[in-house]
Amino acid sequence: MTAAEPAPRPVLRYERGGVTSADDRMAVEEPLELRLVHRGEEQPVGVTMRTPGADHDLVRGFLYAEGAIRRAEDVLSISEWREGELSTPNVLRVELRSGFAAVRTLSRHTFTSSACGVCGTGSIERLALRAVPAVWARPPLSPGMVCALPERLRAAQPLFDATGGLHAAGLFTADGECLVVHEDVGRHNAVDKVVGWALARDRLPLSDHVLAVSSRAGFEIVQKAALAGIPVVCAVSAPTSLAAELAGSFGLTLLGFVRGGRFNVYSFPERLHL
Amino acid sequence: MTAAEPAPRPVLRYERGGVTSADDRMAVEEPLELRLVHRGEEQPVGVTMRTPGADHDLVRGFLYAEGAIRRAEDVLSISEWREGELSTPNVLRVELRSGFAAVRTLSRHTFTSSACGVCGTGSIERLALRAVPAVWARPPLSPGMVCALPERLRAAQPLFDATGGLHAAGLFTADGECLVVHEDVGRHNAVDKVVGWALARDRLPLSDHVLAVSSRAGFEIVQKAALAGIPVVCAVSAPTSLAAELAGSFGLTLLGFVRGGRFNVYSFPERLHL
Repeated sequence: MTAAEPAPRPVLRYERGGVTSADDRMAVEEPLELRLVHRGEEQPVGVTMRTPGADHDLVRGFLYAEGAIRRAEDVLSISEWREGELSTPNVLRVELRSGFAAVRTLSRHTFTSSACGVCGTGSIERLALRAVPAVWARPPLSPGMVCALPERLRAAQPLFDATGGLHAAGLFTADGECLVVHEDVGRHNAVDKVVGWALARDRLPLSDHVLAVSSRAGFEIVQKAALAGIPVVCAVSAPTSLAAELAGSFGLTLLGFVRGGRFNVYSFPERLHL
Repeated sequence: MTAAEPAPRPVLRYERGGVTSADDRMAVEEPLELRLVHRGEEQPVGVTMRTPGADHDLVRGFLYAEGAIRRAEDVLSISEWREGELSTPNVLRVELRSGFAAVRTLSRHTFTSSACGVCGTGSIERLALRAVPAVWARPPLSPGMVCALPERLRAAQPLFDATGGLHAAGLFTADGECLVVHEDVGRHNAVDKVVGWALARDRLPLSDHVLAVSSRAGFEIVQKAALAGIPVVCAVSAPTSLAAELAGSFGLTLLGFVRGGRFNVYSFPERLHL
């Protein structure tokens, strides 16, 4: 785990008539600003709130999801921005190999989903141009392994227990082995960190892998999985209607409410041994 | 309640060895696109995912939070976008009275928080230019009333029970009367809908009011409360470090983990009768 340690903060605790003073450990949320650089030219692409930690993976995963990079070597370097003697971990200088062609799009759509308001399918059609086929060449997943995912995710997520305020995303093999877990106050950031981790190791597309998220699954989560070629997405909480629709369109198996030995299958149950 | 009815969808339910078919009711998530109009000129400002319902309140609240409008009459009209005979509820035409001066900023920062990456306080300083003083002129809140808020919020949130996938935000008076509750897949949207509801009724600033959210409280939630002059924010789940810092800087009382007869006070406990 690489996320920032919880920030202690004095609080008053009220409980049934009594008040006590305590130190609360809070999920850290700080702004992260990106400045892209290509052949000396600079382009700011905006700011997101995130939990510090695994920032380079976050940057890679975010730029990949936005279509600005395709593989690890498209990022020449990531470093803290410097002005004179000042340097800050919350502003990252990202040197790109291939220029700003795709990044212009990113600048217009930064930190919004690249969807179209006219219809849900408009966004789905545009996503189809970049999505990777969801390949599952392994034997069907056992329900028992699926049911064990939340606990394995939680076991690798020590900060949540302390703060109660962080989302986790984890990448698992078809055998249930946990490859990486990342935490963040933003669930989309946690997924970006996981995909960026895999990209940095040239592991994309993530055929035969399972993405587990500790949270709800919305459009953005399934979109990011589709772009990384992840065939199975498990959410501990509820998926949205558009997430299910998208999973259906892109051949992803979407599981929701995975907890307490139960789950719902919203699409492509054939990857499960039911 | 005005949010879209849950979308039924066939699912397979796995539970301890058995599989059944069922209709799952899912939280509806659809893209919403805004096109601002001023004296015949048009400017698209981007797309967000939201749960349809109270869209006009969402638009007002969002434009208010982004600094594009200040009061109800700054929006001349909101209507579905039409092209020939086609009209779509997911693209809204918003006619503004005062032009695009502030909206240019919005276009650059659309659906991102207007924070600065150099330091957390950078964003806080910028917010200070627009935040409204948090005024509480009523007697201190009783802890019992605070503890009752989640249940009152839930009682006005019928869709959550069906889908398990929606966030709620509610506005309460100092006496605990519930004025409005809105639901959305995005917690920031739920708050925008509530603030937009108040703006449309010329109720801003919301002195002596309490905002309750069914979710975690991040930077964005407290930012939106500060801009609307809401002095007390109650979150059923965890606040982030930046949310607590922001509440401290802007004189807001921030309560977290409000559930089961308990809560934590992160700032300005003097508005509570402890």
